[in-house]
This record gives sequence, C-alpha cells and structure tokens, in this order.
Amino acid sequence: MAGTGNEQHVRAMFARSDFTERLGVKLDALGDGWCETSLTTNDSHRQQHGFVHAAVLYAIADHTAGGAAGTTVPTGKDVITVENKIAYLRPALADRLRCRGEVLRTGKNLIFSESEVYAVKSGEEKLVAKLSSTLAVIENKIS
Amino acid sequence: MAGTGNEQHVRAMFARSDFTERLGVKLDALGDGWCETSLTTNDSHRQQHGFVHAAVLYAIADHTAGGAAGTTVPTGKDVITVENKIAYLRPALADRLRCRGEVLRTGKNLIFSESEVYAVKSGEEKLVAKLSSTLAVIENKIS
Amino acid sequence: MAGTGNEQHVRAMFARSDFTERLGVKLDALGDGWCETSLTTNDSHRQQHGFVHAAVLYAIADHTAGGAAGTTVPTGKDVITVENKIAYLRPALADRLRCRGEVLRTGKNLIFSESEVYAVKSGEEKLVAKLSSTLAVIENKIS
Amino acid sequence: MAGTGNEQHVRAMFARSDFTERLGVKLDALGDGWCETSLTTNDSHRQQHGFVHAAVLYAIADHTAGGAAGTTVPTGKDVITVENKIAYLRPALADRLRCRGEVLRTGKNLIFSESEVYAVKSGEEKLVAKLSSTLAVIENKIS
Repeated sequence: MAGTGNEQHVRAMFARSDFTERLGVKLDALGDGWCETSLTTNDSHRQQHGFVHAAVLYAIADHTAGGAAGTTVPTGKDVITVENKIAYLRPALADRLRCRGEVLRTGKNLIFSESEVYAVKSGEEKLVAKLSSTLAVIENKIS
Repeated sequence: MAGTGNEQHVRAMFARSDFTERLGVKLDALGDGWCETSLTTNDSHRQQHGFVHAAVLYAIADHTAGGAAGTTVPTGKDVITVENKIAYLRPALADRLRCRGEVLRTGKNLIFSESEVYAVKSGEEKLVAKLSSTLAVIENKIS
Repeated sequence: MAGTGNEQHVRAMFARSDFTERLGVKLDALGDGWCETSLTTNDSHRQQHGFVHAAVLYAIADHTAGGAAGTTVPTGKDVITVENKIAYLRPALADRLRCRGEVLRTGKNLIFSESEVYAVKSGEEKLVAKLSSTLAVIENKIS
Repeated sequence: MAGTGNEQHVRAMFARSDFTERLGVKLDALGDGWCETSLTTNDSHRQQHGFVHAAVLYAIADHTAGGAAGTTVPTGKDVITVENKIAYLRPALADRLRCRGEVLRTGKNLIFSESEVYAVKSGEEKLVAKLSSTLAVIENKIS
C-alpha cells in the first residue's frame, strides 16, 4: 500500500472525510491523475422513488473527482472544490455504485477534473451521472 | 398547515425523502415558486478542515431548489433533477445552514430554479454556496 | 465619464474586445460589483428558427459577468473566465438584448459572478438566459 | 455524402446556422452519436490578449455538442440547447480549432452530450475547453 507522496495524501483525504466514509464511499484504486471508488447501496441511500438519491451520487462523484485532482498536487498542497456541475443521465437503480475520476488539466492554482458514476445492478452496469469539477490548489492544513 | 395542492405535494416530498431528513434538512416555509429550509450542523456534517462538507451544502441546495420547483407543477405531477451546478463561494463555518430556493422559469416539461445557502455562525450570516438547477416535470408516482 | 481605476479598467476591457464589439455589445453602465450592457439584434444574430443564437446570448452574458467581476479587482489586475454555466430559460425573440451582471463573491484569486439576459420585444421584457461564472484574478497584461 | 436521415438533418442544421457559419465553423465528420468540426482562426476570433475569445470556443463547442445530439433523434425531431457548462482549461493560442462532440445519453425528451475543443498551433494540439450540455428534443420546424 505504498505509493507516491500524492497517493498517500489522497488516501489520507479519504480516511479523514467522515461524511463520505459514513456514507460508505470506498477508495478502490488510484494513480497519477485518476481515482476509482465504490459504494454498496442500502435503503438509507434511496429517495422516495427507490432510486439512489441525487445527493449520494453527487457525494461519490465530487469526492472521486477531488481524489483524482489530489494525486496531481505537490507534497504540502491540498485541493478544495470551487464548483461542480453534475448531470443525471438516468435514474440510478443500483446494488452498488462505481465511480472513476480523471484530471483534464492540472495547473499551479486550478485543477479541472471529471468523474463518471456507474450503477451496478444484477451484474449490469450503466452510466448514471457525470460530474465536471473545478478545484483550487491550497496549502495542506491537515497533518 | 393548509396550502395549495402544490404546497402539500412539496411537504410530502420532504417528508418522504429519508436521506435529507436523516441529514437534518427542515422545511421552514414555502409559497408559489419558492421554498426555505434550514439545517442545524453537527460534527457529522463536517469534513477534514472543520467546514461543512461540500456534499451537505449540495444536498440542502438541491432539495430546496427542487422544493421551489415542486410548488409550480400541477397536481399529479412531480419534479426530478436533470442537472445542477453548485459554486462554493466561501468555506462554510456554521452552526446552522439556511437555504432559499426560487424558480426562474417554469414550463410544461422543464423548470429552472436556483438556491442560495447561507452559513449562520454566532448570529452572523454569509452566503456560502449558490446552486443553479434544471428539473424535469414527470408524472407523480408517489401516493 | 470618470470613475474609479476599476471602472476605467472595465471600460478598457470592453473597448479592446473586438469580438464582442463587432457583435454589437455596448457597455451601458457599471458600478462596484455590477455591470449593464445591451445589444440591438439583427439577422446576423439569429439561428435557423429566428431566435437569437445561443452563442450570442452567451457572448453578452459572459462579457457582462466578466465586466462586473472586473470592477472588483485592484489596479494592475485583470480577470479571466475559468468556467461558465448558462441556462436557456426561453427562446429569445428580441429586438434588443439587455444584460446585467453582478458579483456574488470576490476573493484574492477567484471571483464568482452571475448575469441575466433579457429579451426586449415590442417594449416587453423577458428573462431568457442566466449565466453563472467563475473567474480567476490575473496580472493585467494590457497596458 | 449520403447518410442516415439523422445525419442529413445535422448537415442541414449546420448549413442553416448563419451565425456559426459566418464564424467559420465547418462540419468535418459525423456518425451515430458523434460529430467533428473545425475552425481556422483569424484576428476576428481573438480577444485583447491574443487568445481565441471564450465566446468563439463556446460557439464551436455548443454547436458540435448539438450536432452530436442531433444524430440521435428520429426523423421529424430537432434538438435545442437547455443549458451548457464550459470549462476553459488553458488559454487558446491557435491557428485552428478542432472539436469533437459525443452523446453520453439520449432519451425521448432529453439528450446529454459533451464536446472537447483542441487548439492546433504549429502542428501541436492541446485540449483548451470542455463543454457539458443538456438538450431538449423538439419537433423539427425547419423543413
């Protein structure tokens, strides 16, 4: 479970984020400019129509796009979300969510990344949401 | 606690949304084309820097913009989020969040609404997030 | 036609922007954190259905949100668009467009602003587009 | 230059769009769910810093995402932009712009598509803008 300083920083980001941890977001894999996560859904993630709640899809999408961005900043730096747009492509009927984040462009002050959320149901996978993110590079104030 | 059919529908939307209810989002007031909510923050809403988590701000903003939209559809119809953009204007240091949603334009098939999230801390209030939303009008499948 | 250093900078921004000038975008008024513009439409602004083209609405909305942002930066600084979201609320049937931009939050590195585009037709005015913008503060490289 | 009914419709969309044609946007290729365009830049496309104007990048990105969407609707239908988000990843220093649009999801009423704009300069190509689009399916009113 070694990795570059950046990868270790992203692992720490996930470990310290109580909100997404309590939600059930797991960090599955990451590398330079990308990050993969997943979440096993239960009733607490669903809304009135039985679909995964828009805010749950957002939480995993935002955190994964941020994880991808975090792999590209130097040691001593951190990332913070400036804005996100999320499009809901289909209702999410899911046993499990899978998410992949990728960096489009990393700069000294700003990073642009994206993430795609897939709903996995009875072994089939469908793209249900896509997020487009702007992040700012800030000083790392944790640990 | 009477109201138009639309207002009753939005009250039902809030009552049935387990995810936002568990988060602590309260419906405070609503009228034709607008909706106001609030949330008393606790440690479970915060991220690693002590600020309210981006996904919590999103959840209240999305739900409130949706509530505002819901007040404008005829009986028998419901609304579903198509896409949202949220801008994070400042880190949210808050005892309480207050949110107001407003409809910009309501149509037969699509509704455009917005919401603003304010962080309330020691009696002072700051605008911390703004959401811009597109919603689709669908058949009401609940109740 | 005097004004603060910032106002003069925004007037210079408009004067030097050939693309929007050729399009017909006029700077009507500006103050601290806001900017108003207009455009008299002609056939060259219309698309295949006779409505003002989405890209024309975008051009005036982007430029006006940028003008509002520009009024809030110190002398020697300039602004550049990081990202925009624009929602098209109604088809724009217009003799003239009117646009107002406002700053939501101005910071050392980033500015958040918005603009609203109104279509004026036979004396009546309708909100046709709303833009939400993130801008970066950069060194002013134009004299 | 044959093609499916949809492809012919998209060719007609481009032929009838005076604004983008006057701007210099050329339709290069298209297929089911995708569209490619280009634009040879000149001084009229540049802003005060010598870069291609944000509104020009937007115009080609919007039109190409719309072209991709247009290939997926049945005969007798057309598409109209509901909202777009565009992120400006780098300043666009370009002799030529190249753009590719792709559909993420096509439905009966709504289509989600994306486009990427590349700046080509001295034979080198850089991704300079990415657009994320929601479109509505409407009746085709142009023969």
